[in-house]
Amino acid sequence: MNRDKHISSAFDRDLETIQAQVVKMGGMVEAAITDAASALEGRDEELAEQVRRRDKSIDALEAQINEDAARLIALRAPTATDLRMVLAVMKIAASLERVGDYAKNMAKRTAVLSQMPVIDGSAIALRRMSQTVSKMLQDALDSYIRRDADLAEDVRQRDLEVDQMYNALFREFLTYMMEDPRNITPCMHLHFMAKNVERMGDHATSIAEQVIYLVTGELPDDARPKANSVPSDADVVAGG
Amino acid sequence: MNRDKHISSAFDRDLETIQAQVVKMGGMVEAAITDAASALEGRDEELAEQVRRRDKSIDALEAQINEDAARLIALRAPTATDLRMVLAVMKIAASLERVGDYAKNMAKRTAVLSQMPVIDGSAIALRRMSQTVSKMLQDALDSYIRRDADLAEDVRQRDLEVDQMYNALFREFLTYMMEDPRNITPCMHLHFMAKNVERMGDHATSIAEQVIYLVTGELPDDARPKANSVPSDADVVAGG
Repeated sequence: MNRDKHISSAFDRDLETIQAQVVKMGGMVEAAITDAASALEGRDEELAEQVRRRDKSIDALEAQINEDAARLIALRAPTATDLRMVLAVMKIAASLERVGDYAKNMAKRTAVLSQMPVIDGSAIALRRMSQTVSKMLQDALDSYIRRDADLAEDVRQRDLEVDQMYNALFREFLTYMMEDPRNITPCMHLHFMAKNVERMGDHATSIAEQVIYLVTGELPDDARPKANSVPSDADVVAGG
Repeated sequence: MNRDKHISSAFDRDLETIQAQVVKMGGMVEAAITDAASALEGRDEELAEQVRRRDKSIDALEAQINEDAARLIALRAPTATDLRMVLAVMKIAASLERVGDYAKNMAKRTAVLSQMPVIDGSAIALRRMSQTVSKMLQDALDSYIRRDADLAEDVRQRDLEVDQMYNALFREFLTYMMEDPRNITPCMHLHFMAKNVERMGDHATSIAEQVIYLVTGELPDDARPKANSVPSDADVVAGG
């Protein structure tokens, strides 16, 4: 904690206002993830369409946060440490915006998928994965607000779980595709959705890493556990 | 142009130093794209491994640019317009870093793919797509250095081409997969590579949009032509 003595200055108040916007944005993004997964599971095109529409508000909120952060820097000319906090808030907003995009992307595919054969268990597996990621995101933002590096580290570790869920789904989709060519197209879309959710996890991890950097002044030693994973050669070759 | 009268101040000199780093980073990223595509085409695992290793230098350069930009803000307390330029440089560096990640990801899959059946024409199509994106990136950075909104707008328009190339490849992979189940696994990987290249195009477009914003003070009216495209329902249903 590098801001233990919280003398409330104009800078602090302005930063808190921006942080409140980030928390609001986080809530909107978490809802987008959950609703995108529900829409897929219930083949609910109306809900999917809502997720797509609501992404505009998420984008607008990010633009607002960027504006406000730039104004804060220009007005208050913060010191190095305070400046780092403002830059972190912008990075966190950028990550949230990307997650929102992935949720929108999932929602788009839902409309396409609802006209295709159902792949057993896939929607449930994707919902479970989405819930894990949504919780990671929530905890990453919590860790940010409370400047809690331990919680942030915990979020980072959980990204491995998401990677494992993704790898398991990847293999499952391969077997469905080989069983019946009619499964190929829906599985391609489901696979993309799974990859999107895995990328959301990467962004939650980025947020957690920002928090660790803010609190400890250093990025975690080991590179991020395993962003952009490719299933191991053995798995893939066995599948092919 | 909002900085016609270029009175060279300490701020300008510092910003130019950072811009030179961004240009250097751009060169490294363009090389990563080209080499990743060549490695795929030549089944050159050694070159692919180089691309993966070099990504660390790209990441380090982004970190350096962020440090320098933060220091510039802290030291020179730039005005609103100047501040926007510094923030833009950070956003551009962030986009380049993402493109580098996608190139690294392509390179990872190359090692996996070199053990699988060849999908005719796919490597050539991906190389062509990569070249288009690499040129977009180069022009986006050029438009940034020259504050050339027309060139930036041209880059934005070219993103549609990349989307079309991606959609054509998506359909082609579907047909290969349906023809022979042994093609499924390699096509899944190739499809991801194509999607990665398409996303690189989105980031080149983001850079171009930053330039348009810097020069005109406004983001382009129409939302970005078509990021995150999903092939139309008709295409996909016909495929399945």
